[in-house]
Amino acid sequence: MKVSRSLTTFLSAATVASFLTVAVTAANAGPPPLTKEEMKKASQIFFDRCAGCHGMLRKGATGPALTPEALKKKGYNTEVLEAFIYNGTPGGMPDWGKQGVLSKSEINLLARFLQHEPPSPPEMSLADMKRSWKVFIPPEKRPKRPQHNLNWKNFFGVILRDVGKVAIVDGDTKKLVNIVDTGFAVHILRSSASGRYMYSIGRDGKATVIDLWLKKPDKVAEVKTCYDARSIDTSKYHGYEDKYAVIGCYWPPSFVVVDGETLEPKKIVSTSSYYYDTQEFVREARVASIVSSHYDPIWVLNIKEAGQVWLVDYSKVDKGTVKIDMIDAERYLHDGGWDLSKRYFLVAANMRNTIVVIDTKDKELEALIKVGTKPHPGRGANIDHPKYGPIWCTGHIGEKRVACIGTDPEGHPEYAWKVVKWFNLPGEGGGNLFIKTHPNSKYLLADRPLNPDPELKRSIFVFDKVTFKLVKTLKIPSKYKNVRAVHEEFNEDGSEFWISVWGKKDYPTAILVYDAKTLKLKKEITGDWVRTPTGKFNVTNTMKDIY
Amino acid sequence: MKVSRSLTTFLSAATVASFLTVAVTAANAGPPPLTKEEMKKASQIFFDRCAGCHGMLRKGATGPALTPEALKKKGYNTEVLEAFIYNGTPGGMPDWGKQGVLSKSEINLLARFLQHEPPSPPEMSLADMKRSWKVFIPPEKRPKRPQHNLNWKNFFGVILRDVGKVAIVDGDTKKLVNIVDTGFAVHILRSSASGRYMYSIGRDGKATVIDLWLKKPDKVAEVKTCYDARSIDTSKYHGYEDKYAVIGCYWPPSFVVVDGETLEPKKIVSTSSYYYDTQEFVREARVASIVSSHYDPIWVLNIKEAGQVWLVDYSKVDKGTVKIDMIDAERYLHDGGWDLSKRYFLVAANMRNTIVVIDTKDKELEALIKVGTKPHPGRGANIDHPKYGPIWCTGHIGEKRVACIGTDPEGHPEYAWKVVKWFNLPGEGGGNLFIKTHPNSKYLLADRPLNPDPELKRSIFVFDKVTFKLVKTLKIPSKYKNVRAVHEEFNEDGSEFWISVWGKKDYPTAILVYDAKTLKLKKEITGDWVRTPTGKFNVTNTMKDIY
Repeated sequence: MKVSRSLTTFLSAATVASFLTVAVTAANAGPPPLTKEEMKKASQIFFDRCAGCHGMLRKGATGPALTPEALKKKGYNTEVLEAFIYNGTPGGMPDWGKQGVLSKSEINLLARFLQHEPPSPPEMSLADMKRSWKVFIPPEKRPKRPQHNLNWKNFFGVILRDVGKVAIVDGDTKKLVNIVDTGFAVHILRSSASGRYMYSIGRDGKATVIDLWLKKPDKVAEVKTCYDARSIDTSKYHGYEDKYAVIGCYWPPSFVVVDGETLEPKKIVSTSSYYYDTQEFVREARVASIVSSHYDPIWVLNIKEAGQVWLVDYSKVDKGTVKIDMIDAERYLHDGGWDLSKRYFLVAANMRNTIVVIDTKDKELEALIKVGTKPHPGRGANIDHPKYGPIWCTGHIGEKRVACIGTDPEGHPEYAWKVVKWFNLPGEGGGNLFIKTHPNSKYLLADRPLNPDPELKRSIFVFDKVTFKLVKTLKIPSKYKNVRAVHEEFNEDGSEFWISVWGKKDYPTAILVYDAKTLKLKKEITGDWVRTPTGKFNVTNTMKDIY
Repeated sequence: MKVSRSLTTFLSAATVASFLTVAVTAANAGPPPLTKEEMKKASQIFFDRCAGCHGMLRKGATGPALTPEALKKKGYNTEVLEAFIYNGTPGGMPDWGKQGVLSKSEINLLARFLQHEPPSPPEMSLADMKRSWKVFIPPEKRPKRPQHNLNWKNFFGVILRDVGKVAIVDGDTKKLVNIVDTGFAVHILRSSASGRYMYSIGRDGKATVIDLWLKKPDKVAEVKTCYDARSIDTSKYHGYEDKYAVIGCYWPPSFVVVDGETLEPKKIVSTSSYYYDTQEFVREARVASIVSSHYDPIWVLNIKEAGQVWLVDYSKVDKGTVKIDMIDAERYLHDGGWDLSKRYFLVAANMRNTIVVIDTKDKELEALIKVGTKPHPGRGANIDHPKYGPIWCTGHIGEKRVACIGTDPEGHPEYAWKVVKWFNLPGEGGGNLFIKTHPNSKYLLADRPLNPDPELKRSIFVFDKVTFKLVKTLKIPSKYKNVRAVHEEFNEDGSEFWISVWGKKDYPTAILVYDAKTLKLKKEITGDWVRTPTGKFNVTNTMKDIY
């Protein structure tokens, strides 16, 4: 950008030209024509399918920048763009055409749309949020103790992704407790500090709180605080149990503090900021993930594009004060979890193949550790290892290795913040999304749903937690066709683990329950309701951050 | 705004229409035609004359919103707008036409421009800033002790506003030491903790650091970190003396931490945020003013539009961490200063006729106090009063009253955070910009440069600090024509005070030096260089925040 006091470059000719073409549909220079109706439709498809990786403003993050300027530089015209959208790329872009998700004419529409300046997405104010806010059962009408005899601390919340619902399943009996209508593509679930409340956040920015103490556990409030969201967590510090939740928005780029019991929106804070390294303004600096400290009144927010970790102190929200430590880290932040001590938070900077370590006690960047291609820890897996001491492991989307990192600078300084162990998933390629363990289990589990190999993607790999040797490969029974194995979750005492059989929403699949000692399939949870199960969240493990 | 998941309202028809009209110059519907060349010229005039009050994006702050939508609602067409711009308003809008600052054709151009959507102003990255960064004398080549025998701690920096220069004047001898070329419309000066360095910030966003120890004190570095700015301050906490400066930008809305000695830009933080009350996003949330704590490593930044006070901890900037307490206060924040103890910071929320008190120790909002119409304290005036204890006073642009507020909740709780004394400036109307006192002086001084009365605006009113009775009215000698008296500043020991004779840049005026005991005019500082003197900053008083 030219820097000069005369602000004569306010209005770029390109901007004017592109706006002109939208309506005038001139054909020679500039982007290909697009009617107003087409612009509307293309905006919606882009939002549903593309914005997550490329950004609403198309400046890029997980996916590359797709501004008209960037595309022109690369010489990408309608035909080239159509080919990308149809076939995907080895770098991780889905094959929307091949998969049959987008039709040829939709792909052509998108390819033309991308050559126009992105339209300005709308803002959302507190008043807008309040219009969407519903309390189905106010706190004073909720029970004072559980209204059933079930062991609710061993309940599992199961995301039924493509049907827009969350199933509550009893971990003791494996019986369905209720199905809660949460809306479009729930991304994650979180438990409150007491475990009583379970929160969901959808990709449409709708948050729901489910009361597990009701006779029939169900949602008691909902609110939409964003157009697009990925994260939610609760206040876990002593004195603030169940008091607040925080929602991390993708658009508008912000976080929103809501009442923990009613979801009443309280406070919006913008996350638009500057890339930590180049220090260019990034309007679309989004909240990728959130964890909640057990030892301080803080939430750890990962500001994806900026490459900053924000420690948000919520202790004075009611007084109108939000305190934030903005810590420069690395780009682009994705997901992560606590070490065993819960002092250190480890998060993937997935485009720099780095794990960032934040010391939440001293509120500083502790370390940057190079790992493999596109780390994707989920929340990671913690092991108290006989040799290395406490370690935390992550798998990768981009390769088959798993990396384990020493996390005990005081007890085991020689291993701290180094990859102390690499080990491989069998077969070729990457595609791992989640690894998981439990303090009572001898095993570490890894899935591989993004691997193209039809056998690998329906397998769960079981490793010994001490030797890191492959102990067993668990395969989804062959009667389940066209499915992937995804997301391992242990029950409360670590004696079982559950695996999702991830299919399409047109047909039911199953949740498989394995004995965590014998590794035998113990139970298949089935029923017409079991469609597109993905993430499963055990109340106790989620409440106490056990992984 | 309609809230719905279908983002079909991305691109408003109005936006498209306005962009179309720019180039197509269609005449019937929509805003009046404007050529590209005219758009360029109008943008520049708007930036120079209007953006300060109305905002680059025209959402309004000190002045009302001027978006096409807002104007259409009020039914303002080209003729109405021309009338406003020509004549000004009683609310404070200058009479640009009458004053002869803008021509009839420029006014017509602006009136048409305002009916179009505002163009997007450019961003500024760290790399952009570095291109403008110049070190004239690197720190290692600067002297280790003063290279002159002058009493530099009693120097005054005098802003020569419309000639883009700062004069350094020796407070002992009243002799000009040097004239420093600082560029366009310097807004304020600040001293570093040691007093050695003096910093200027211009409305064009250019910061300059002047080394008072040079044989001929002069600028040693400069950098442009914004297109528009109003504030700068330095790190005053023990261990950080002269280490950092912070620049508050109007556009881009941000603050920038720079090296205190070289002005190397280090860290940019966006101030785009949400209005504290309605919680709507405000891209243009600007830094109105800054003060620096003496007791903590923090700067107090006033985020004008948001109505928030941000306490910015700079102790970990070198580690890539900025800690901010964002405190909800009131709209729109303007200027303010410390109480006598320097624990409390008092700032005007000028559109809500309120003084906000921030407790910088507990990092909380302490009080909101209703005062008169449009308070404008500058940094205010502190008095240790025999009855009320420590109090802090402010004048008003909108009325003749001065309000004094008790600031000692421990020693004088009955007076704390109440207006304990109102007293009047003589004559009608408001127009006060600055009041000032000094611990060694018996008097409190007030100017009135914005009052329309030709006599009042060339007068300084001297009040007794204990009785608040008017002691004397000092008038600028009649030989100075077409001038206003503005900005009082005491010398180091409080034995003198200086007044600026503010004229136009076409003719020289004077700086008047009065004996602070006898109130007699002691000296007229004159010379061809004395053109448009406004703010004057004594090194010791500025360094120690004495006012």
